[in-house]
Amino acid sequence: MVDPGQLIVRSLGESRIPSPLGSLLTRRGTTEHYVDEADRVLLDDTVAMLAARGDELPSFEPGGPRRRIYFDPSKIRAGIVTCGGLCPGLNDVIRGLVLTLNNQYGVSRILGFRNGYQGLTPGAGHSVVELTPAGVEYINEHGGTILGTSRGNQDPEEIVDCLEQLGVNLLFVVGGDGSMRGARLISETIAARDRRIAVVGVPKTIDNDIPYIGQSFGFQTAYAKAAESIRAAHVEAAAQPSGVGLVQLMGRHSGFIASYAALANNDADYVLIPEVPFSLDGFLPALRRRVADRGHALVVVAEGAGQEHLRDAPLRLDASGNRKLGDFGLHLRDRILDDFAAAAREVNLKYIDPSYAIRSVPANPYDSVYCLRLAQAAVHAAMAGRTELVVGMWRGRFVHVPIPLAVSGRNQVDPDGDLWLSVLEATGQPPDFTA
Amino acid sequence: MVDPGQLIVRSLGESRIPSPLGSLLTRRGTTEHYVDEADRVLLDDTVAMLAARGDELPSFEPGGPRRRIYFDPSKIRAGIVTCGGLCPGLNDVIRGLVLTLNNQYGVSRILGFRNGYQGLTPGAGHSVVELTPAGVEYINEHGGTILGTSRGNQDPEEIVDCLEQLGVNLLFVVGGDGSMRGARLISETIAARDRRIAVVGVPKTIDNDIPYIGQSFGFQTAYAKAAESIRAAHVEAAAQPSGVGLVQLMGRHSGFIASYAALANNDADYVLIPEVPFSLDGFLPALRRRVADRGHALVVVAEGAGQEHLRDAPLRLDASGNRKLGDFGLHLRDRILDDFAAAAREVNLKYIDPSYAIRSVPANPYDSVYCLRLAQAAVHAAMAGRTELVVGMWRGRFVHVPIPLAVSGRNQVDPDGDLWLSVLEATGQPPDFTA
Amino acid sequence: MVDPGQLIVRSLGESRIPSPLGSLLTRRGTTEHYVDEADRVLLDDTVAMLAARGDELPSFEPGGPRRRIYFDPSKIRAGIVTCGGLCPGLNDVIRGLVLTLNNQYGVSRILGFRNGYQGLTPGAGHSVVELTPAGVEYINEHGGTILGTSRGNQDPEEIVDCLEQLGVNLLFVVGGDGSMRGARLISETIAARDRRIAVVGVPKTIDNDIPYIGQSFGFQTAYAKAAESIRAAHVEAAAQPSGVGLVQLMGRHSGFIASYAALANNDADYVLIPEVPFSLDGFLPALRRRVADRGHALVVVAEGAGQEHLRDAPLRLDASGNRKLGDFGLHLRDRILDDFAAAAREVNLKYIDPSYAIRSVPANPYDSVYCLRLAQAAVHAAMAGRTELVVGMWRGRFVHVPIPLAVSGRNQVDPDGDLWLSVLEATGQPPDFTA
Amino acid sequence: MVDPGQLIVRSLGESRIPSPLGSLLTRRGTTEHYVDEADRVLLDDTVAMLAARGDELPSFEPGGPRRRIYFDPSKIRAGIVTCGGLCPGLNDVIRGLVLTLNNQYGVSRILGFRNGYQGLTPGAGHSVVELTPAGVEYINEHGGTILGTSRGNQDPEEIVDCLEQLGVNLLFVVGGDGSMRGARLISETIAARDRRIAVVGVPKTIDNDIPYIGQSFGFQTAYAKAAESIRAAHVEAAAQPSGVGLVQLMGRHSGFIASYAALANNDADYVLIPEVPFSLDGFLPALRRRVADRGHALVVVAEGAGQEHLRDAPLRLDASGNRKLGDFGLHLRDRILDDFAAAAREVNLKYIDPSYAIRSVPANPYDSVYCLRLAQAAVHAAMAGRTELVVGMWRGRFVHVPIPLAVSGRNQVDPDGDLWLSVLEATGQPPDFTA
Repeated sequence: MVDPGQLIVRSLGESRIPSPLGSLLTRRGTTEHYVDEADRVLLDDTVAMLAARGDELPSFEPGGPRRRIYFDPSKIRAGIVTCGGLCPGLNDVIRGLVLTLNNQYGVSRILGFRNGYQGLTPGAGHSVVELTPAGVEYINEHGGTILGTSRGNQDPEEIVDCLEQLGVNLLFVVGGDGSMRGARLISETIAARDRRIAVVGVPKTIDNDIPYIGQSFGFQTAYAKAAESIRAAHVEAAAQPSGVGLVQLMGRHSGFIASYAALANNDADYVLIPEVPFSLDGFLPALRRRVADRGHALVVVAEGAGQEHLRDAPLRLDASGNRKLGDFGLHLRDRILDDFAAAAREVNLKYIDPSYAIRSVPANPYDSVYCLRLAQAAVHAAMAGRTELVVGMWRGRFVHVPIPLAVSGRNQVDPDGDLWLSVLEATGQPPDFTA
Repeated sequence: MVDPGQLIVRSLGESRIPSPLGSLLTRRGTTEHYVDEADRVLLDDTVAMLAARGDELPSFEPGGPRRRIYFDPSKIRAGIVTCGGLCPGLNDVIRGLVLTLNNQYGVSRILGFRNGYQGLTPGAGHSVVELTPAGVEYINEHGGTILGTSRGNQDPEEIVDCLEQLGVNLLFVVGGDGSMRGARLISETIAARDRRIAVVGVPKTIDNDIPYIGQSFGFQTAYAKAAESIRAAHVEAAAQPSGVGLVQLMGRHSGFIASYAALANNDADYVLIPEVPFSLDGFLPALRRRVADRGHALVVVAEGAGQEHLRDAPLRLDASGNRKLGDFGLHLRDRILDDFAAAAREVNLKYIDPSYAIRSVPANPYDSVYCLRLAQAAVHAAMAGRTELVVGMWRGRFVHVPIPLAVSGRNQVDPDGDLWLSVLEATGQPPDFTA
Repeated sequence: MVDPGQLIVRSLGESRIPSPLGSLLTRRGTTEHYVDEADRVLLDDTVAMLAARGDELPSFEPGGPRRRIYFDPSKIRAGIVTCGGLCPGLNDVIRGLVLTLNNQYGVSRILGFRNGYQGLTPGAGHSVVELTPAGVEYINEHGGTILGTSRGNQDPEEIVDCLEQLGVNLLFVVGGDGSMRGARLISETIAARDRRIAVVGVPKTIDNDIPYIGQSFGFQTAYAKAAESIRAAHVEAAAQPSGVGLVQLMGRHSGFIASYAALANNDADYVLIPEVPFSLDGFLPALRRRVADRGHALVVVAEGAGQEHLRDAPLRLDASGNRKLGDFGLHLRDRILDDFAAAAREVNLKYIDPSYAIRSVPANPYDSVYCLRLAQAAVHAAMAGRTELVVGMWRGRFVHVPIPLAVSGRNQVDPDGDLWLSVLEATGQPPDFTA
Repeated sequence: MVDPGQLIVRSLGESRIPSPLGSLLTRRGTTEHYVDEADRVLLDDTVAMLAARGDELPSFEPGGPRRRIYFDPSKIRAGIVTCGGLCPGLNDVIRGLVLTLNNQYGVSRILGFRNGYQGLTPGAGHSVVELTPAGVEYINEHGGTILGTSRGNQDPEEIVDCLEQLGVNLLFVVGGDGSMRGARLISETIAARDRRIAVVGVPKTIDNDIPYIGQSFGFQTAYAKAAESIRAAHVEAAAQPSGVGLVQLMGRHSGFIASYAALANNDADYVLIPEVPFSLDGFLPALRRRVADRGHALVVVAEGAGQEHLRDAPLRLDASGNRKLGDFGLHLRDRILDDFAAAAREVNLKYIDPSYAIRSVPANPYDSVYCLRLAQAAVHAAMAGRTELVVGMWRGRFVHVPIPLAVSGRNQVDPDGDLWLSVLEATGQPPDFTA
């Protein structure tokens, strides 16, 4: 046991000198990025520790194998479906589910549905694939998903009909928030019919914008790959007179990829994300000055940033029902070119949007491990009879997150949090470019 | 706010069927790897939340910038030293320290000491290097450390003499537990002389065996690189009749690299780590049977595993005073060859020990971000007058860990924890190879 | 010595059966891709061998060190300039020139001119950089060029004034065909002034379209990187119902990158290059049938392909005076979408244009070796007093190619040659999509 | 047509100054590395050009498709076997053979024999694998060989029995010089039985030591991977006081991998290869001086180098009948350590032998293209009834090389040729370390 005294940090004396960071980091006078001297981080938060104090605190059910399970492994059939856009690690999850079902529980009848929820409806005519340990042996070395995918949900009644016809007891859905809403409807339909079919999700979002699951699988691979594009843009910008590199990265509502990828090389001058509105009238002259001072500049922009500057774009929806965003990257490119032209200044702008190149790569080793362990947790949850949940990692533990909670909002970069502070420190950019 | 009701996971019914995992995972009847049904993971552990309940719980001081600082940036000089074996990310940390000192606080006088603590002693004759933002611009793309390194500590009195002569107020030590013990002595010597010199460590251990700092920098890069060797050994083993791939990975006392690297490809048949003793008499025939059944097998062994089987090796110490381990990998190789020979069975064994190839690579993007943020936290701590601490990440927050606590023990794989359970599930190996 | 009899290949008997390849490979009845039975490849073509037969055959002067040199190394100053677009290996060439000049000949005064020929004119105000072995030690690990670059030529009189003022005796120009034309003018101006300044080029073209130099440096790196984009497009296309991957690669006049990158993965269904005109009216329905038959298709197009289908685009020139091509890739994308729409067929098209991501990467080991050896040859040529030449590799030897010859035409994929035949075999596509 | 006048290189004047390279590059007074001023490289060597002059010169038969073929594709069965040690690209060759046989000639019956020639003998009991285009779709992404391999030849009578029983008409052997000698015996046995079975080899040698085939497949991948180990050793050596990096690379008789890998980073101080004997008594003090002068040094040694210093080792043969070499790398390591110890000098030596890590990686894009094209050429040769040959690339053309010629000697680094000169220039090492 650690004695609380062991946690006290020595200090040379009282800090009296005002920090020079002040003017930089204060965002319009409302919040400050300083650590409160009274703030602390708990050493241990196991329930056992706290229970001794009589607390009842909001908490998650941990993932992992149970001593007693709900389904008889010898009698069940599992099904797997992947939905929505590609993300590194999909094949790792499929492989992890198949190997864990087979090796740990002896489940040998595992079906793969083709092309998302379409594969669970009779109309689409996609054939069902038998999944075996031998068949999935090397699939983790490929990007994409061997099952194919598609966007959009399908009629839950039809889907449950399909599950019943095929005798599926465990349905694993690997997909994003739209697909999880679909999984919830499927689960409710099952409940209404009083069937014993568990629906367990492995949440997929390359943008890392699903809440309560820690970090989404594939996210580290994605920002590592995105960092290569930032490096390329930097090399291009630095090699030209008056070079500007402009990199648009994924992130419809959340700037995690842009933030982490920018930190990875630590050579971006500006990072623009959806969570932090900014003044274009402040940004453009700042960029121009930076190019004049240093010869070149590098701008990283999340695709969902700056939507406030695209007010006149009409509302459009994609097949999953997500609102299509205006393309701010191209808008920003044109605004920068116009601004330099208006100022009669030379500029050599290189615009890079690596989107597909990022989504389709195989998972890196971190994500491979993470996908495997998420798959193990998902199988244990389903075998124990849990349903309408997704698996995630919270404070270092795998946990069960009810689907309604996982689709209740978005995980976003906190404009007053540690991550954005690191970005501001690394770039030296003003928080919102207002005077 | 999350309503506790939102955290309740739906279940299809009561789990009554005994899990088939039982016999596999129980370790000699004493512990079991099952999740206790009453276990929970806290949603939130901020002190504010708990303080409302009147608790005083063991907790860390968070890292980050302070509103008031201890040192006047215009008057100080910083020093940086890297000690011990190579680890991916050393140059990222150096670069992060220099950029943060310079860009955030305006500290322009930053010295690099050459070749570890030797560079802080007059005898070694290593010249001191002036570190500037321009000079460190691209160093993160190289492995190793631009400052050089060495093992072993030096006389703390001589070191503090050196710091005083050069007018250094902030000393950043990037090194392992031996170096942190050295940093503690330096810090105590400074205190005894009543000098205002902050000593802040960035803990380095490629084995991830320093406690209370979360995961050490470079660790993810290391196991990702190690996974390539496992892949190579697997390809070799699978291509030969009766092929056995044997990969020895780093991990003197802790099997983290072996465990994560094995999970990354999920194709190891056996993982042997220092934390879990095992029976060679059980292991060898199990390996032989596996080769007979499947044609080949893959064994991953941490260098510190199986020391109980090398009892007769004499005690040896390295320059840092660490006990030199017997070379179990080579011992195991010979034992396997002998065992197959004794059984008159063909075996084509390929032995790979990639050690240096792993230590010397540049950090991957995850570790680059992490190193930068550790460096930011270290600078903020030092500027605020904190001393005799290392920076780490605990439950998602950067924290200040007193050096005495950081050197008080080892971070090890918990034989009853989630990680080892994932390894056992992935390999299907028995926990300790006893009958 | 090899006896000619040793070169005779055994045959089982006379080949009488017509090849099934016939209809596929014959291009409109004019040429055929078959090997003529009388064709042979010379074992040896050294001049010594042939001279014995009294021949005088067209031949190149070989590169390499001379016993006697023209310049006194102790008295000379060298200059290096990089021009035009980025290409992998520029920094390797700079480094190779500096190290060879310094280590082999003891030349210590080496200047780098900034931003292409602009750096050799007084107006541009770019400062000159002193290049040393220590300064270039690690630059080969970065993409781009540490000297910067720019497009377009400058007044040769001004440039020679600059060279004379700075006392430069050896000018190394690393650039494309436009820059080599500039180098020729510089060289002629030097000759007109009767000055002793050698002008030696290292030809740069990421498209591999300069003739008589074998393969251009950076080309292998480029197509290896391009192959990643083809892989990404394949993964995307295969994961969607009715997926089409469309990858536009560099190649204004020559389809080498498209051809080699497509062969690297061997998963493209169609490759379109500038050297082989094709019928869009034949291509579009063929693509549609392929998608119907196999579920997806992959198209690789060189940027200069299909210009015959963009007849109405106005003539535009870039800063180097090259005619700007119409953007066929985007045009083709629209035509494909229109064609599927007109046929009322679903299509999920992913368009990737990785251009900048390819130009800016560091050279791979093959190109690093090649750049170093080209630089060695360039230094030896200049020290021996050769001028107005570029270095290249021809039939396995480094050679001196007079600049007028190197800019006299283009290296292109031979529509009747081995490479294009390999592409046709690998894709199975008809040669020109006419009925 | 090129006018010979276009090939004349301009020169500033007569070269009269003795080159400073003289003393460095002369090897014991016998040969010199200078280019003879009369030497030339032929522009064109097609037979047509030369035939006009009435020559009959030694020449190869070119590879490629023939208008008439020997076998009726609808009636034949092909077999593929991979032999000897692993090499990058084996799966690319298998894939290329299967796809070309199937797609170009409509051959659908293709067998894969398991584990080298063992798979062609009844005793070994390895099952035969049916190879299809779908089954080989992604195998090029894996290292190794899906067919497995083994060393050593088998009774040719048994093998031909097996081929006859299975009705195989085309046998493709992918293997090294030992396996090609086996293929020759098989071919002779077939001829003695007067059977119509073509035997075509795709020569495999990671060391690039088979003559008359240009460069062997996998070689570029191998030295690129080897360059990573040199980089690692350099990082380690440079980070330690008195660091020495010692890297042993493959190359039993030929130092190509060592030479190219050393040039790739251009940071080796010494390269030792089998083709160039050297004085250990000269080398050791030279190394010691280098470490004293620069603080560290990097030595690259091919495994077959320095055998003259291991005279007392007994003769040993491996399963393929190759003489086992003494392990010079470890010997050299010990000699270096002894030498520094005798001189009472500190040394931190890091020894890296990456052998297996190099053999087992997938082919890089260059080698993937090359393997595919070799496979295409092999299929065309076999279909045309050619036998007892291997395919290779000579002067830029794919050619048919009779097996007796391909096994008649070794391809080695020419100690007086361009490549070794580049190495000497890049390292600055004396040719043989004699005084």
